[in-house]
Amino acid sequence: MKPIKVGLLGIGTVGSGTFEVLKRNQEEIKRRAGRGIEIVMVADLNTARAKELVGNACEVVNDANQVVNHPDIDIVVELIGGYGIAKELVLKAIANGKHVVTANKALLAIHGTEIFKAAQDKGVMVAFEAAVAGGIPIIKALREGLTANRIQWIAGIINGTTNFILSEMRDKGLDFDTVLKEAQRLGYAEADPTFDIEGIDAAHKATIMSAIAFGIPVQFDKAHVEGITKLQATDIRYAEQLGYRIKLLGITRRTEQGIELRVHPTLIPAKRLIANVEGAMNAVLVQGDAVGATLYYGKGAGAEPTASAVIADLVDITRLATADPEHRVPHLAFQPDAMADTPVLPISEVTTSYYLRIRVADKLGVLASVTRILADATISVDAMLQKEPGEGETQTDIIILTHQTQEKNVEAAIVKIEGLPTVVGKVMKIRLENLS
Amino acid sequence: MKPIKVGLLGIGTVGSGTFEVLKRNQEEIKRRAGRGIEIVMVADLNTARAKELVGNACEVVNDANQVVNHPDIDIVVELIGGYGIAKELVLKAIANGKHVVTANKALLAIHGTEIFKAAQDKGVMVAFEAAVAGGIPIIKALREGLTANRIQWIAGIINGTTNFILSEMRDKGLDFDTVLKEAQRLGYAEADPTFDIEGIDAAHKATIMSAIAFGIPVQFDKAHVEGITKLQATDIRYAEQLGYRIKLLGITRRTEQGIELRVHPTLIPAKRLIANVEGAMNAVLVQGDAVGATLYYGKGAGAEPTASAVIADLVDITRLATADPEHRVPHLAFQPDAMADTPVLPISEVTTSYYLRIRVADKLGVLASVTRILADATISVDAMLQKEPGEGETQTDIIILTHQTQEKNVEAAIVKIEGLPTVVGKVMKIRLENLS
Repeated sequence: MKPIKVGLLGIGTVGSGTFEVLKRNQEEIKRRAGRGIEIVMVADLNTARAKELVGNACEVVNDANQVVNHPDIDIVVELIGGYGIAKELVLKAIANGKHVVTANKALLAIHGTEIFKAAQDKGVMVAFEAAVAGGIPIIKALREGLTANRIQWIAGIINGTTNFILSEMRDKGLDFDTVLKEAQRLGYAEADPTFDIEGIDAAHKATIMSAIAFGIPVQFDKAHVEGITKLQATDIRYAEQLGYRIKLLGITRRTEQGIELRVHPTLIPAKRLIANVEGAMNAVLVQGDAVGATLYYGKGAGAEPTASAVIADLVDITRLATADPEHRVPHLAFQPDAMADTPVLPISEVTTSYYLRIRVADKLGVLASVTRILADATISVDAMLQKEPGEGETQTDIIILTHQTQEKNVEAAIVKIEGLPTVVGKVMKIRLENLS
Repeated sequence: MKPIKVGLLGIGTVGSGTFEVLKRNQEEIKRRAGRGIEIVMVADLNTARAKELVGNACEVVNDANQVVNHPDIDIVVELIGGYGIAKELVLKAIANGKHVVTANKALLAIHGTEIFKAAQDKGVMVAFEAAVAGGIPIIKALREGLTANRIQWIAGIINGTTNFILSEMRDKGLDFDTVLKEAQRLGYAEADPTFDIEGIDAAHKATIMSAIAFGIPVQFDKAHVEGITKLQATDIRYAEQLGYRIKLLGITRRTEQGIELRVHPTLIPAKRLIANVEGAMNAVLVQGDAVGATLYYGKGAGAEPTASAVIADLVDITRLATADPEHRVPHLAFQPDAMADTPVLPISEVTTSYYLRIRVADKLGVLASVTRILADATISVDAMLQKEPGEGETQTDIIILTHQTQEKNVEAAIVKIEGLPTVVGKVMKIRLENLS
């Protein structure tokens, strides 16, 4: 059988990784796929660099349209990123009857509905294993491996940059800004780290997982997104003392009221396996009603780990390229006519537990006032930590871990606590999940 | 579209779990599969109990042949176990053009070649996600998720019974026999625990993973199999002091000389995520050349976790039942005409590191004699631990961790060490893997 022909849009880190791995492992991949997979054209604005990378192996062009319009190309791999030109090119490729592989989580989290609809109408596949958690085959696990289950929730460390920063903050007791600079120096954080540190990248990925897990459309605009920029070394230390680690988690959960979809720093019990995922590694914990908890761990970024996911998609597509669409896995795991319109809950309606750090004047009765407010709001206290004031200080921290309650209850209680004359400044609130 | 019709052979633990989960989640599963999945007939020798379980939902028969010969049944789920009658029924089902789902690792590890050949010739699928690591979709990860990679090695905790026993031995400092009795009382170990504690069950699973990872036939007879019955609480404690945990691992590795395929107790660094997998849980660590290390964790046994895997296979088959065989994933991940005949190495040819516990008379020069033997065999010492003799004792233990060397070198050195006049009894040898 003739090799399947692939066109690459963008040959940066992931593109060159894909090119390299396909070249290195072509024999092994062909033994699996039953057919060669050949990159025949690469489009990149930097044609000189692209030519250096691919040599004479394939044609290099400056104009991406040449790839998406090329009659011989079966699969277009989009590695440009963003949702401007990338969206346009993906839709053109689909319109031209080409299958698409993309690592572009932003594009899918925001325009997935439109893109999958177009692919569905045209009878082509859009595969996106590389969009979530790099080389970990989590999309496959969710779409195919756990189909027996009603998935109950997913909690994932799905952004390596922030996990690296949090690991370093904990390890070295340093503050966020210091570690961020170090991460930038080491190449773990980008020059403009906003998408990572503000939780946006993680929210794109959580949005995609949420859709696949629960059979709902991608709805990035409904996600609650909080980054790690306000976290202090103090909070990491207090959490540690109480037996918890702080991780930036992407969480999505099915409740009777609707779907939770949120990214925020989260206290999790230190004894959980996922709490021990350190550095730039990723891990996704999935709770299904039949299987219980399963965890998927690996490198969430980098040239070859991401290429591993891109190429797995190429193999899947190669196998199913000429099959009837009904033989393929639906894009969002559920049949397009069987999607649900379960609402995504606003954060005020979310139920979880909380870590509260309250700065107080070291005066008699302050703890009583705080706990009274919580009791009046029917918020149970699960653990408490009160430190003696430091030498020569008149203020101290009270740390409270609450039982589960609705976010709006906690918010109302915090307003009251901040109104107490003995309370200094703002209350620090971090959500807590037991993941059990 | 009409529901696909399934016949169940055996309705014990996994069978009733499958029946229950399919019933409970039928709506959700249909939304994914695009078609209902219906159990229409159950065969079990205990028809009374089977009828109690399924009620009026489907026909219950005593003779399994009625299922495999039934003209309306599309998929036969074999949950009988063993390789006597189960093999016969699976081959009959295939001959009758039915797809097969099985959780039977023994059957596949021993007769897989014959069974997959028959399925291939007949154009039907034999799916076996449930045969390895219960509900963890590790077969799917290996066959489909990591297709870009040359897989380098796999190391898995793939037997829950032994992992439970080892966790308890470490936690409570108890000896093997005591913990085994406790495990039997709690239902974690069977009345005849041989298959589990002697490593045979783990070797069946490792054999299957080895075939899928490297594109070789299943060759259970070539596997090196050692259980945990000789492990002492002492060894677990010494390992701990040196920063290691002891786990029963199924290991398969590609080397230049051939394939390693072995099950044995193994020291692994305590800081590795997989070292912290406790109790009856399973986890599989896979090293690929592109993706690096990925880990898959979850419940390796039990009614519903195993049912989760069985039903995922049912969904896959439902989707591809009417597709051309070329659109399906090859049974052993590689195309049947692209299998390799890479030899499986005998254990004497395996290269790894070792933990040696040597009981010695507390006399001057004994350590020098031991280390001289190792040096002469070009075995480097990585760490050493010598305890003072206990009060009133004249003997003590020397613990040595070696660098990597070939098994036959270590065996030869051990013979010499055991021949020293100051060495008492046999040397305890446990293999050590850094998993990095």
